[in-house]
Amino acid sequence: MTNKISPESILDAIKSCVPNDRDFIGLHEPHFSGNEWAYVKECLDTGWVSSVGKFVDQFEEKLAEFTGVKRAVAVVNGTAALHVCLKLVGVEANDEVLLPTFTFIATANAIAYCGAIPHFVDSEEKTLGLDPLKLDLYLKDIAEIRPEGCFNKYTRRRIKAVVPMHTFGHPVDLDPLVELCLRYHLELVEDAAESLGSYYKGRHTGNWGRVSAVSFNGNKIVTTGGGGAVLTNDHSLAKWAKHITTTAKVPHKWEFYHDQIGYNYRLPNLNAALGCAQFEQLPLFLQKKRALAKRYQEVFKTIEGIRCFEEPEFALSNYWLNVLLLNEEQAEMRDALLELTNNQGIMTRPAWTLMHKLPMYKECPRMDVSKAESIEKRLINIPSSVF
Amino acid sequence: MTNKISPESILDAIKSCVPNDRDFIGLHEPHFSGNEWAYVKECLDTGWVSSVGKFVDQFEEKLAEFTGVKRAVAVVNGTAALHVCLKLVGVEANDEVLLPTFTFIATANAIAYCGAIPHFVDSEEKTLGLDPLKLDLYLKDIAEIRPEGCFNKYTRRRIKAVVPMHTFGHPVDLDPLVELCLRYHLELVEDAAESLGSYYKGRHTGNWGRVSAVSFNGNKIVTTGGGGAVLTNDHSLAKWAKHITTTAKVPHKWEFYHDQIGYNYRLPNLNAALGCAQFEQLPLFLQKKRALAKRYQEVFKTIEGIRCFEEPEFALSNYWLNVLLLNEEQAEMRDALLELTNNQGIMTRPAWTLMHKLPMYKECPRMDVSKAESIEKRLINIPSSVF
Ligand SMILES: Cc1ncc(COP(=O)(O)O)c(C=O)c1O
Ligand SMILES: Cc1ncc(COP(=O)(O)O)c(C=O)c1O
Repeated sequence: MTNKISPESILDAIKSCVPNDRDFIGLHEPHFSGNEWAYVKECLDTGWVSSVGKFVDQFEEKLAEFTGVKRAVAVVNGTAALHVCLKLVGVEANDEVLLPTFTFIATANAIAYCGAIPHFVDSEEKTLGLDPLKLDLYLKDIAEIRPEGCFNKYTRRRIKAVVPMHTFGHPVDLDPLVELCLRYHLELVEDAAESLGSYYKGRHTGNWGRVSAVSFNGNKIVTTGGGGAVLTNDHSLAKWAKHITTTAKVPHKWEFYHDQIGYNYRLPNLNAALGCAQFEQLPLFLQKKRALAKRYQEVFKTIEGIRCFEEPEFALSNYWLNVLLLNEEQAEMRDALLELTNNQGIMTRPAWTLMHKLPMYKECPRMDVSKAESIEKRLINIPSSVF
Repeated sequence: MTNKISPESILDAIKSCVPNDRDFIGLHEPHFSGNEWAYVKECLDTGWVSSVGKFVDQFEEKLAEFTGVKRAVAVVNGTAALHVCLKLVGVEANDEVLLPTFTFIATANAIAYCGAIPHFVDSEEKTLGLDPLKLDLYLKDIAEIRPEGCFNKYTRRRIKAVVPMHTFGHPVDLDPLVELCLRYHLELVEDAAESLGSYYKGRHTGNWGRVSAVSFNGNKIVTTGGGGAVLTNDHSLAKWAKHITTTAKVPHKWEFYHDQIGYNYRLPNLNAALGCAQFEQLPLFLQKKRALAKRYQEVFKTIEGIRCFEEPEFALSNYWLNVLLLNEEQAEMRDALLELTNNQGIMTRPAWTLMHKLPMYKECPRMDVSKAESIEKRLINIPSSVF
């Protein structure tokens, strides 16, 4: 049985998958049903709310264990994590860094904070993330390998790194990307802000880049209020990450000596406490989110002209935010759908405005990004909380 | 009656002012005896832990009311606040920014984050802060006023701003500094990270700069775990501060459009909740800290060769961290004193290493900083918690 596509039939389909006893269904709301109270209260009772404390250490250990990386360094948010990742792999002022134009603003901003230049890449519909084959063809044209690294023949700037982003939790196709990075001498940094609990070929995202960034913002699968982390399998990079995120102070019983320009990117212990409690519930959250995604996928199979995004064969996704994709011919229905659902208390939102369309990045280099432009017009995120 | 100076007599003097029922007396420990748990629990119960929520608004209102500025914008920490302040007054790459060499690392780092160059100034013993008269004499020699602003004749770079810091809570002498800034076309940014509750000539610090930065780190007079704020009497700058600290997203019911390079410098609601409760206790904290300072001042009057820092006549200080200053002839006693007190569980620490001695800033321009060098050798901070 298939239903005719209309904003109303789509609204009904969404409604059939989410609780019907609420006035408002947000896009992604946090869920506190474990030890949040207990751990946060312990911080207040002991006075350890700030930069040092056992929850920061515990949180880092849990995170490393869960994701399978050797070390996690907790920081103040995902944006700070990305900034640090780029510093760690040696991105410098006037370098170019490749990233999808279809991403959240933080990916591009972190590059700009280094004084580097974002260079925008197209996405593929299979993953909603960076298209490695198209990037390969593009680099064949523009890249020149020199002893000092990869250079852009046209701008003459060094191309230092690639930052794929696992969109809404769906892993990009990492194997060809890793291979391409080796071939072109590019550093790989994964923006895994959205993909905690997502696996590529059986291994957790964040294990492919030399360093990777995750986020624990309020809208993420687990939250610390605000927070993030740098993940890495390289102990010396982890040590350096800890050092520069804590003002680069050289340990001493009382002296204040800093050996390089550092940052105050510490995650407070109070926020780490919340994170420790949230982490205990992550397996349950993942299970519930997967069940919701399956409900959406089933119900949207009955409507023609639209599909609910499903993980590709190589991925196990956290389904952080569920995605509807209208067919090209139905794209103009998008705004009416956004109006209707939001007016009815079912929160939905369109894709982020593509980075190359924003005033501060519109002069940046880019390849043909027609697929990203097509996705942008047709995509809607639908409610994805842990129900 | 005067006592002979020795590490032991100083230790005894400190001990006579602080509680004697504890194994360890820290330098500055947070104090949670009010509504901290109630407000934090409310965040957890309502799910509002992250970027928006009523405690952020309340915290900003309380802060503006207490300090007497028109608007306060809460941010993730004091370092972020300083960075934003410098952006707001127009500090750009390759500008020089004047600051005391005797400060915490964050003041210099925030300048470096803008791609600008720290230019170090001497301090005066009366305030432990930037010496406005010495700066004036120095600028007479090196500065050249052009239509585009103030320039350094020797480096040819623009000198854009001055960032005085209210050391350990003691206000710098602001009147001559304000006048100097007008004369030399320099922007004034107060690093008021340490001076919440400190007044200069009856008005709260942070009201003289076009924008000012405060910190709510765990070691400050009130804490949010980690946190800070931008203070300003200029509504349009406040609006801009809010905008660029929240990713510069243009408000829209669902669109993601950012009109400039912004930051994720939001203070999470969870941390603001803690801050709201702490703020309610600030008057009590100030009273207790003043009483402790008076005890220290009295007892150190009986020891020759050392003095406990007292606020100058124009200041009402928060006495955030109490300061002992050894006479020049006693300076070499410092390390023995640090050893003895810290070994006895009474936490003390020396001055920060002066900024111009750190590897990343040692090539930066500076004036003669002999007074700061003298202070650095003779200064010790002693326990200053709310007892
Ligand atoms: C793809 C992506 N990168 C980076 C970030 C930045 O994380 P945060 O908001 O914690 O700074 C986010 C989340 O907001 C994100 O979705
Ligand atoms: C003088 C001064 N400036 C800036 C800061 C930075 O504040 P925060 O630690 O909150 O980043 C501090 C406090 O640590 C400070 O003492």
